[in-house]
This record gives sequence, structure tokens and C-alpha cells, in this order.
Amino acid sequence: MSEKKIPYKIYLEENEMPKQWYNLRADMKNKPAPLLNPGTLQPMAAEELAPVFCEELIKQELDDTTPYFDIPQEIQNFYKMYRPSPLVRAYCLEEKLQTPAKIYYKFEGNNTSGSHKLNSAIAQAYYAKKQGLKGVTTETGAGQWGTALSMACSYFDLDCKVYMVKVSYEQKPFRREVMRTYGASVTPSPSMDTAIGRKILEKHPGTTGSLGCAISEAVEVATTSEGYRYVLGSVLNQVLLHQSVIGLETKAALDKYGIEADIIIGCAGGGSNLGGLIAPFMRDKIKGEKDYRIIAVEPASCPSLTRGKYAYDFCDTGMVCPLAKMYTLGSDYIPAPNHAGGLRYHGMSSTLSQLYDDGLMEAVSVKQTDVFAAAEEFARIEGILPAPESSHAIKVAIDEALKCKETGEEKTIVFGLTGTGYFDMVAYEKFHDGVMENYIPTDEEIAASLAKLPKAE
Amino acid sequence: MSEKKIPYKIYLEENEMPKQWYNLRADMKNKPAPLLNPGTLQPMAAEELAPVFCEELIKQELDDTTPYFDIPQEIQNFYKMYRPSPLVRAYCLEEKLQTPAKIYYKFEGNNTSGSHKLNSAIAQAYYAKKQGLKGVTTETGAGQWGTALSMACSYFDLDCKVYMVKVSYEQKPFRREVMRTYGASVTPSPSMDTAIGRKILEKHPGTTGSLGCAISEAVEVATTSEGYRYVLGSVLNQVLLHQSVIGLETKAALDKYGIEADIIIGCAGGGSNLGGLIAPFMRDKIKGEKDYRIIAVEPASCPSLTRGKYAYDFCDTGMVCPLAKMYTLGSDYIPAPNHAGGLRYHGMSSTLSQLYDDGLMEAVSVKQTDVFAAAEEFARIEGILPAPESSHAIKVAIDEALKCKETGEEKTIVFGLTGTGYFDMVAYEKFHDGVMENYIPTDEEIAASLAKLPKAE
Repeated sequence: MSEKKIPYKIYLEENEMPKQWYNLRADMKNKPAPLLNPGTLQPMAAEELAPVFCEELIKQELDDTTPYFDIPQEIQNFYKMYRPSPLVRAYCLEEKLQTPAKIYYKFEGNNTSGSHKLNSAIAQAYYAKKQGLKGVTTETGAGQWGTALSMACSYFDLDCKVYMVKVSYEQKPFRREVMRTYGASVTPSPSMDTAIGRKILEKHPGTTGSLGCAISEAVEVATTSEGYRYVLGSVLNQVLLHQSVIGLETKAALDKYGIEADIIIGCAGGGSNLGGLIAPFMRDKIKGEKDYRIIAVEPASCPSLTRGKYAYDFCDTGMVCPLAKMYTLGSDYIPAPNHAGGLRYHGMSSTLSQLYDDGLMEAVSVKQTDVFAAAEEFARIEGILPAPESSHAIKVAIDEALKCKETGEEKTIVFGLTGTGYFDMVAYEKFHDGVMENYIPTDEEIAASLAKLPKAE
Repeated sequence: MSEKKIPYKIYLEENEMPKQWYNLRADMKNKPAPLLNPGTLQPMAAEELAPVFCEELIKQELDDTTPYFDIPQEIQNFYKMYRPSPLVRAYCLEEKLQTPAKIYYKFEGNNTSGSHKLNSAIAQAYYAKKQGLKGVTTETGAGQWGTALSMACSYFDLDCKVYMVKVSYEQKPFRREVMRTYGASVTPSPSMDTAIGRKILEKHPGTTGSLGCAISEAVEVATTSEGYRYVLGSVLNQVLLHQSVIGLETKAALDKYGIEADIIIGCAGGGSNLGGLIAPFMRDKIKGEKDYRIIAVEPASCPSLTRGKYAYDFCDTGMVCPLAKMYTLGSDYIPAPNHAGGLRYHGMSSTLSQLYDDGLMEAVSVKQTDVFAAAEEFARIEGILPAPESSHAIKVAIDEALKCKETGEEKTIVFGLTGTGYFDMVAYEKFHDGVMENYIPTDEEIAASLAKLPKAE
């Protein structure tokens, strides 16, 4: 198919938007390992998950055979408020780099949550509402997920209780205030609201909190409050399912103009964006219909794929959640405080872990100062101020485009630009002032954390 | 023409984007009064403006007969990176209000500057570059204009010196940091860089600055530095010309779907957004081709159209700029510090002032707490967190839609959503905490300020 003139931004028409999510697991030859009950080490059954998660979401979580799920009309309507997101041809970046490569990015930042997180937040809120629940609880670190969930709950008139890691609560008052604008209650964690919070505060009165602790509080409140469930913004299969809308739109936009991608690049923390972006491309690759290089980019300070171990581990520091088999640095692992940009989860989605283990995906880790240099270069050329997380993908997309310049190859590179950096200016300031440091864990540090893995296979 | 099914968001195709700006003055029967030299009280000639402004921009400023100006290809290319902006059908807001009215908004916030200001910034930077200048200077208050100009200068590799009102510089470090990301130098004003800054600091050592002072510093630096000119983000005819791209796109999108607007609403500070949005609609109205209600919305705390006087006044507090005939509260007038959302200019674009004086446009003022209540309602229903400035238009659009509910009229309302509020969370916080106050000047205060108008006709 010959290429039509490619506009700067490709927008699908409303009637071209996906009406189903794609469940990549259904087409995987080696299925991701099941969640295990941490007590019995047996696969978790739906009824065991029911006190914590919404019913429909549990079905999605456990289903590795149904390839497509209809997107309910109410969610499609919400998607139409901020989707389709544009697939942008980076003409200016290509010219600046003087590369023969063609660079495209799928930009998920044009909504108030500032990231792709809204794609799953609205789905999870919808199923909670449909189940007749009063509300949901969750944790948030930097606040992107909490903001997305607040917006989604506001739309469906659901109560939303967010436990925000105390240090972020204090350092990111703007994020907190956006959540309040959407009617969410935001509590700094650890708090006196929960048994686990009180216990931690008694033991460590001055603690500024951690994501693990916030998860434990949110789960406790969900399971002890009438009409509440807990929701999570990454890692889970259900989240990757909802996020497949990113990849499906990307592929539809490429197909519309007869563009053949060669390399797909995404940043990887828990895997929500990467898993969604690559889903339909990985399907073609698994089925042998088309080959792609698929690259996961992670921070050198939290290198779960490139330096972790593929093993069962706790999903949270508090060890209240099921065990998941994944590439992990150990649930105790916490990146150094000087790590600025997200992607700080100790593990990786089971689905992506299995794909990586099967050799279907590459992984690369990048240093934080290199990431911010790429972010700033991108901002100046393409206009968009990227989130630090997204900038991991930018860095590697630029690297690949420069390789093409050396070899003269006209590769087509597609990367996920997951969000904007408006609330990350403290990190940008450190970069501008030349005081941003890189942190790369030693082998000993990782080994020490991995030594605490649970015994499960 | 029968209506096609209207999507949530109408995007023009690239080839449907405007290739010319529209100069409304060419079609006005009563032309806006010319700028006067404050010394001689004679109309300013191009050569008098040349030390301050770029040559091509002076031509645009003074031309009230040429209806269309070609948009240079380089600017069209830049526009393609973030334009066309969507014309959004507010289906969810209509349903929530249970109104028969049809509500549309033109959303200008989907770019890193967060507002429509970029439309003129890129044009002004382009002409500065074309003239062979090294750089430009400007002032910024809250930082939207400064951010837009930084982005534009970065794109054309021009130096950009921003004088930022000191209180904003200190209270809005994130805005400052975005500008630094784009390579601009940002100096808190008053500074020791300029004669006027040193003079003010000597007199008032603890001052936190004012827009008037920042303008004076920026103009001084432009006129005393080799290869620099001064640029301004609102009020001027040239700015309204560039911003006509908003209205032209809006009209093209409406026409594409056979939609007939009845009411056009925009917020009004200096007039850059409103003048751009209404331009092609006002053209039809002036020519008698179609009637519209056109409504300017201003803050009750800075009511230049609704309570000011139509007279020649200084454009800046420092009285270094030409005199302009406009609706004004007097160049000494400063809204109370508790006024949170922009739109704090003491006067109004000459063009809009003349249209208002001719009865072609209505004006209404709204209270700040009502504006934030409308902003929050809109955010929860339509997803977008609006800038306080833009929320003035939201408030009146909702009011008009509710009137339609009472009367049963199916009016089509179009309003300008100029930007996002991500950097305005301090004001939102005040609103949430119930400590936001309203300020409405007394007649005596306005009279006192108007008593200092210069003697010119």
C-alpha cells in the first residue's frame, strides 16, 4: 500500500475508534503465571479476590482465553471526551536529528489527568458503579493515577478515597488540589484512619510513607467499609486490557495511512502503558504475521527487567496482596530518593514479564540525567513538555533514530508519549541547576533485596 | 443545510486549516482610534514604533484596510504541531444542565503553554527572526504569555528575555521552570538589570513588582540592546490578527457540520482571545449577513468594559508606551490582590472597545467565586480543568444555557475555552477551602483612577 501524505497529527474519526479491548493473553502461547494466595500458594480463585476487587474486573483479571472484550457504551462515551489521542509524526524532531528514520508518537497527555491512566480509571469506576458500590479506594504516589481515578469517579458519581504517600502529599499540593477539584478525599499515608496506618505511625512516628504502606491502607479501608472496593492503576491484567485502547488506536492510525512500523518503544514501570501500546503489535508478532522490535525502557535506578529475577514475589511492600510471578527486584526494593521520574515499581506486569522471558521483547535501562536531557530536547523541538516517565521512551527513540542516521536505514519508529510533565517541574529544576544525580544500584543491593523473595513456584 | 451527526470533538483536517489571518478592522465601519505619541498627541508613525517593535508587526499593527494576511508557511507548520484545536460539543454538560441549548467550546489549552497565547507568540517570534534579530524581550505576570513566547523563541532559536513580576516569580516557580526548559532567561522584576528597575528598587526596596514595571524593564532592555525588540501578548491589533486563527477554525468547524451559532462568548482581559474568537462572526454581523449575540465576560474586580470609560489612556503603568483609545479603568487601576484569575488589565483592546461602543457586542462582569464554582462544575462534567480566565466564559455559557432551559429555546452557544488551570491550583485551593473572596471596586475607586487619564482625544 502506498503512503498517503502523512499529516502532523493523525486523529481517527469517532467511528474508527476501538469498540473492544484486546486481551493479549488469549493469544500468548506461554500464558502468564496465575496469581497465588500468599498463604496456600494456590492460584487465587475469583471468590478470594471478591472482597478486594469488583466482580467484572476479577473476571477480566483471570480470563486468559477471551481475546476481545466489548467496551461498554458508557465508557466509549467517556473516551470520546478525550480520545482518540493523536498519533503524531515528529517531523521537527526528525529534521533536527537529520535522520532518515520516521518517528511517530502516540500522545496520551491531552487530558486533565495528564496521562494514559484515565483509560483504565474510567473502566474501573464504571464496573464499580455497575456493581452498585458506593465508592473505591486506592493509593497514589506522584498523583497521576489518583487524579485519573478522581476524574472517573466524579463522572460516575462514586466516592473516591485516595491514600497519597505523605511525602508526595506535602511536596505536590497541586496534584492533591486537582483531586479535590474532582471531589476525591485525599489522605496522607500513613494515616490514623486505619489499623495498619496507626501501627506504622506508632513504630515510625516521623515516617513520610511509602507506596507499599499506602496500598495496605487503601486495601484495609476497601475491605472493611460497606460498599467499597480497591482499585489499582498498573501491573494487573485488567489494566493492560483497558490500556490496549492505546495500541489499537495506534495500529488503526498507522493502517489508515499504510504505515508499517518497525520498532515500538514504551516506558515500563508496572507495565500499564507498555502493555497497552504493544498489545496488537505483539499479537501479530506471536502469530507470525509481522515482525517488530519491541523495546521496554526502564530507569537504571529501578531495573526490574534488565537486572531483576523472574520469580514469584509480593506485589506490595505490606504483603497483603496476592503473589505474582514477574521480573522483580524484590518487594523491599525502593529506588534512591534522588530518583525523580516515576517508574519506581519493584516488579513488572506478569504478562510483560512472560513476553520478555520468551524473548519476544527487548529491554533497556537508561540513566535519569540522559532521560531529562532527551526530555528537554524534545520539548524544545516538538513543543510538548513530557513527563519524566514518558521521556524514557523519548531517549531510546532518539537513540534508535540516530542509529538509523549512521546506517542510513529508513526505519519507522513508534513510541508512547504517556503524559505531560507540568507537575514535575521540581525535577526539571534540579536538572537545569545541574544538581540531578544518577543512581544505579549495586549487584549486592539487588541480591540483598532478592534474597527475601517468598518461596513459591 | 441539515445537521450531520456531530462528534464530541470536531477537528479540521490539515488542508482545512486557515492559510490567512483575518483583520477585522478592515471591515469595521468605525475604525479603532489610532495609537498616539504621548508627547505630541499625534498618531504614531511606523518609524516611531520601529525601535520597540519588529517591522512586519508594525505594518500589521497600523493596517486597518487589508482584510487578510497570509500566514507564512513556517508559522503554518508550527501551527500544525498543536492545531487545529478541537471544537468540542459539550454533550455531558448539556445533559447535566438538562438544557435544550447546544453548547460548543473551542479548546485552546492542548499545548504546553496551556493557552491560546502561543498563536501570536509564534508569529511574533517568526517576524523577529525574519528581521535578523538576536532576540526579544517581554514581561509576564502569571506566566502564560512568557511560556508561550519561550516555546516560540526556542523553535526559531531566538534569545528570549522574560521579565516576570517578582511576586509571580516567587509564587509560581513551576511556570518559571517551564520557561527555563525552553531556554528563556527569566528575571524577577523589578531587577538591577535596568535603569528603571534600579530606580524603583531604590525607592521601594521591598516591592514585589507589577506588570507595569515589568513592561517598562522589558521595553528598556529591547530599546537599549543591539538586535532586540519588545513583544506583547495581548491588547495590540497585531495580536488580535494572529488570534483570528481561533475564530476562523471555529467557523470552519461549524460550517463543516452545518451548525449555526446564536451566541458567541469569550473572556476578556486585554482582548486577545475574544478578539480572535469573534473576528469572522463579527465580520458577518457588520456586513449584515448573519446576526449573533456576542458577549464579552470580564471579572467584577476589573470591569473595564462594564464600568470603565472610553478614552485615551496609557497602555502601561510606567507610561512609556503609546496612548490608546479604549475602555479603561485608568492605568493606575490594579485589581485587589485577592483577585486570583488573570484578566487584570486596566484597559481593553481598541478594536473591541470600538465594537462595544458601537453596540455590536455585549459585556457582562462576573464574581470570582461564581467563576470558580462554574470551573469546578465544568471540570467534573467535561473532564478539562479550566484556567480561571477561561472559566469566566464558562460561567456565562452555563447561565445562557439555563436561560434556554427556562424558555425552551434551542440556542447554539459557542464559547472560548482559552486554557487549562494546572498552574492555578493555589486559587482552586482557596476556593475549596472557602477562603476565596470577591472584590468589587467602589464607584469612588474607579473615579479616582479615571481622574488621572491623560488629556487626549
